[in-house]
Amino acid sequence: MSAIVRLESAEDPRLGDYANLKDVTLRRSLEAEHGLFLAEGAKVIRRAVAAGYPVRSFLLSERWLDGLADVVAAGDAPCYVLPPDLLEEVTGFAVHRGAIASMERRPLQSVADVTAHARRILVLEDVVDHTNVGAIFRGAAAFGVDAIVLAPRCADPLYRRSVKVSMGTVFTCPYARMDNWYDGLEELRAAGFRLVALTPADDAVDLDTLAGGAERVALLLGTEGDGLSARWQGLADVRARIPISAEVDSLNVAAAAAVACYVLTRDVPPRPA
Amino acid sequence: MSAIVRLESAEDPRLGDYANLKDVTLRRSLEAEHGLFLAEGAKVIRRAVAAGYPVRSFLLSERWLDGLADVVAAGDAPCYVLPPDLLEEVTGFAVHRGAIASMERRPLQSVADVTAHARRILVLEDVVDHTNVGAIFRGAAAFGVDAIVLAPRCADPLYRRSVKVSMGTVFTCPYARMDNWYDGLEELRAAGFRLVALTPADDAVDLDTLAGGAERVALLLGTEGDGLSARWQGLADVRARIPISAEVDSLNVAAAAAVACYVLTRDVPPRPA
Repeated sequence: MSAIVRLESAEDPRLGDYANLKDVTLRRSLEAEHGLFLAEGAKVIRRAVAAGYPVRSFLLSERWLDGLADVVAAGDAPCYVLPPDLLEEVTGFAVHRGAIASMERRPLQSVADVTAHARRILVLEDVVDHTNVGAIFRGAAAFGVDAIVLAPRCADPLYRRSVKVSMGTVFTCPYARMDNWYDGLEELRAAGFRLVALTPADDAVDLDTLAGGAERVALLLGTEGDGLSARWQGLADVRARIPISAEVDSLNVAAAAAVACYVLTRDVPPRPA
Repeated sequence: MSAIVRLESAEDPRLGDYANLKDVTLRRSLEAEHGLFLAEGAKVIRRAVAAGYPVRSFLLSERWLDGLADVVAAGDAPCYVLPPDLLEEVTGFAVHRGAIASMERRPLQSVADVTAHARRILVLEDVVDHTNVGAIFRGAAAFGVDAIVLAPRCADPLYRRSVKVSMGTVFTCPYARMDNWYDGLEELRAAGFRLVALTPADDAVDLDTLAGGAERVALLLGTEGDGLSARWQGLADVRARIPISAEVDSLNVAAAAAVACYVLTRDVPPRPA
């Protein structure tokens, strides 16, 4: 049973996990060093707990305490309660729905583990915007994509903004990070995945022609702006496009991912028992 | 030929159009009062000019002047040049690619005008987030949606954030605002549009069953979080859903819109000449 601790100062050292939430660079190093991440809002906190992430502490304003009382009571992590103005002073912004929790990261699974039984996976090459990473997870989870593999420089799915935009799907959609950008795709090819590079290029095939079927498909999505690297496009088995108007350059990567997940997960036969 | 004016002070009254860009409430009233909007970044500025919006002024840092020199020279609006730190002081944030322009709004077309020859339209009921509005326009333009109709309380497509996220597609995708939320859909029905309400509800038909065909379709999209109002769902001819995993509540409205536009614009026969 966890303790509910009402604090009176934004400087309290027990609030160290929550400092300077708008400073991305500082947060990245702080979260890596302490192996933590933050979940914001009661719904997302519940999902993180349900997915088995250990809670380091909760930080709430008084009026949101009731809504999370069962979650708080079920564990032994301390629950700090602050007046709303102090809460904002600690974090540097208005906390979404007055509730935030510091959670412990867990060791990431290997690429081989998360893709072992997968039929449809996404592979993100250097998607650097946390909002896009979160949105891609939400779309992938919605369409039943089995796993997501991240290139080494892809943004962190457990960063606060990613977690929030993903609506907590980063906790349930299995993901792993490849060690090596240069050769990372070969492991997937060796595991039987057909490597499909998503590109707006005119000479690519219509993605719709790749829908359905029981074969394993890995859809490769590139960085914002420049898209997939020449190397990854070259390594792909096929380059595919979503047909769009010639008057529009491209779709946002998260919108493209949602459409592509929709297309590639349609009419996939049930997995053999 | 416009004048290039190098300014030395963030307080210069000629910079009034660019003040406090992060204050949404203040900007809304300032932009409405003066009938202006802001375009950010050389690419988006070019698109606004190409779409025929008159320029009130440009505001650039020195190094971005060359990249827009032809656009600046082609008109007679003044071009203010500021050192980057003063540019940030005026606007309150780091200006995207160091270029911004204040443009004049034009009278909106009527719903009847923008939908006159349309086959596929979106109707947005109270989408309040500017990022979502911009993203919906970008997706709609990419898939060749013919027009977008906004309910009275839907967020402004020409707000800076909408413009930026839309990649300038708000300038080219025709849109209009209905006067009356309560009865606004009846005008579309009378014009022959089949009203399709997009919803995550389990009892709705699969959107895919409505793809293709020459009939006129108006896809209704609801507000973030709560979705379409009961009234609009009741007025719709059919309620349709994008099939998603039972473990995920919903898609973000912009992702749902992109998928829906993809589905509804596939296999539409060419318009008779």
